[in-house]
Amino acid sequence: MSSSAPLDNDRLLRALLREPVDRTPVWLMRQAGRYLPEYRETRAKAGSFMGLAGNPELACEVTLQPLRRFRLDAAILFSDILTVPDAMGLGLGFAEGEGPRFDRPVRSRAEIDALGVPDPERDLRYVMDAVRLIRRELGGRVPLIGFAGSPWTLATYMVEGASTRDFRRVKGLMFDEPAALHALLGRLAEAVALYLDAQVAAGAQAVMVFDTWGGVLSPAAYREFSLDYMARVVAGVRRSHDGRRVPVVLFTKGGGAWIEDIAATGCDAVGLDWTTDLGDARARVGSRVALQGNLDPCVLYASPVTIREHVGQVLASFGRGSGHVFNLGHGLHPGMDPEHVGACIEAVHALSPAHHG
Amino acid sequence: MSSSAPLDNDRLLRALLREPVDRTPVWLMRQAGRYLPEYRETRAKAGSFMGLAGNPELACEVTLQPLRRFRLDAAILFSDILTVPDAMGLGLGFAEGEGPRFDRPVRSRAEIDALGVPDPERDLRYVMDAVRLIRRELGGRVPLIGFAGSPWTLATYMVEGASTRDFRRVKGLMFDEPAALHALLGRLAEAVALYLDAQVAAGAQAVMVFDTWGGVLSPAAYREFSLDYMARVVAGVRRSHDGRRVPVVLFTKGGGAWIEDIAATGCDAVGLDWTTDLGDARARVGSRVALQGNLDPCVLYASPVTIREHVGQVLASFGRGSGHVFNLGHGLHPGMDPEHVGACIEAVHALSPAHHG
Repeated sequence: MSSSAPLDNDRLLRALLREPVDRTPVWLMRQAGRYLPEYRETRAKAGSFMGLAGNPELACEVTLQPLRRFRLDAAILFSDILTVPDAMGLGLGFAEGEGPRFDRPVRSRAEIDALGVPDPERDLRYVMDAVRLIRRELGGRVPLIGFAGSPWTLATYMVEGASTRDFRRVKGLMFDEPAALHALLGRLAEAVALYLDAQVAAGAQAVMVFDTWGGVLSPAAYREFSLDYMARVVAGVRRSHDGRRVPVVLFTKGGGAWIEDIAATGCDAVGLDWTTDLGDARARVGSRVALQGNLDPCVLYASPVTIREHVGQVLASFGRGSGHVFNLGHGLHPGMDPEHVGACIEAVHALSPAHHG
Repeated sequence: MSSSAPLDNDRLLRALLREPVDRTPVWLMRQAGRYLPEYRETRAKAGSFMGLAGNPELACEVTLQPLRRFRLDAAILFSDILTVPDAMGLGLGFAEGEGPRFDRPVRSRAEIDALGVPDPERDLRYVMDAVRLIRRELGGRVPLIGFAGSPWTLATYMVEGASTRDFRRVKGLMFDEPAALHALLGRLAEAVALYLDAQVAAGAQAVMVFDTWGGVLSPAAYREFSLDYMARVVAGVRRSHDGRRVPVVLFTKGGGAWIEDIAATGCDAVGLDWTTDLGDARARVGSRVALQGNLDPCVLYASPVTIREHVGQVLASFGRGSGHVFNLGHGLHPGMDPEHVGACIEAVHALSPAHHG
């Protein structure tokens, strides 16, 4: 099947563009991940996280695994937000149980100025090959979402060198050498836009920017150091491919206070964590953007009956009509029970048609 | 000096009650703490954290240490929010570098129903003795702030048994056995109100409730499981002592979206972290409550010149008039430089008079 074949299920794209749908589309952040035994098996075969994400066949396999189990309305590329800084030469590694780590963090203006902007088809070829392979294997069943980290979020890892609680180093740069941080963010905005644009060219039908750490900033710093650079990314990605509009979703965890500003970037949809009420958010942004979210992932630790009740509350809080993509407010946890994940997805199938048509 | 002697410096109390002041009062969360070498010395002498917090003389000593260095407008009792669950029999311990831990976490309805409500003068006598001693030693120079954890925040530690990233157990109780969690929170609200009331009777001139983990809840869950119980605490604490009103401050970290609701509890002031703009917050709550905050503590890693600039921005964002208590948006970190802390406090002294009178 050619990659330009029509989609069997285009609910995700329609909802992201506020076009009518018969029910609310659903996908879940980290739907391909450690909570699935088949994922853990493939991951073991790959030897390491980058052995998995860096191998197009294995990345395609784990991308498709949740779609074999669950009635999901989208696939999302299996990869990591840190592939871009890795391709910039920082040396990405994952220490067991410790999260990501860079061998060569970037802290001085000279180190920032020495960074190149990766050419996606040359320096991130394994990602582009994975996108092409997944599109082929999906055969038009559901759309494929591409993604990248936001410039600010990538900068936090690049400057800190590892996970951090207080963001001391990157905020030190922000407060004492803002020009150096702006230089880094400008380069990252360029790299991320090129990267997402290449994913679209390779077959991604929607793209999402994960701003995992925008919420640790003050409102003024968020606008200056995170949002402005996401706006550049939005402006730099082609928005149509194969005659269809390619929606862009921006997700700032902890950014519920700033959704009007996020919507003003020109994105098509805003991702929300569970600390903002969907109905309030919809009242604030109107029909300018779609909303994606926002069940507290911890609900999936509860019983299937409770899960269904909370799914119903999320659907009801958005209310009638299109413009909602059901998701969690954050990724699935490794310890979650696949049956509970299935209960969540089935509840969206069962309860959402009443909010449409 | 008797504990009912007039205060030499009552700026904190006046600002919390929106009465005119000549400059903005300043104190800093965790102003008594590990960033001070004299604290580390006393802590070493005490042998353990509870050896320190549990000894009124040593607790008084570390409470007063920052006031010897800095021109602060308040002392805050040196203690821990987990003294209340400890007095309920959970067995509090602090493993080095790991944070607090309970030997006997509370997870079932039977365990919850077996919990008693501590009598502060009997079961938390060391705290009450510390309050009395600090008041005597302060000699009316500045007011003493008492404090407690919010019922929800205490419940998170009591159910999880230790620090957690995902609040899986306490949210499990919330989703699957809400009646059990309500029973726990009701008991905690009673215990916290009694505890704060006893601190006021012993000499605390203002009290603050720390809701460190309210921000991990959805808006609906926040109202039901955190805010409603803080409202009970506010209603249960005596509000005047020695002929003066005793202000109550509520602080929910990550609660910037909910300040109208927080203000409606009947508290006198709302604490804010740095993710909410003080000027916006003031516009939203008007003169119903004072606001306390909200400099990003990471600014203190920057240079003194940068610190002064950011202090100026916080003061300007609140604007003219009374009703602002300068503070950080979260506690001081152990690695911070006391000279930078001093630069922050001096900047408030230098820059804030222009916003008053």
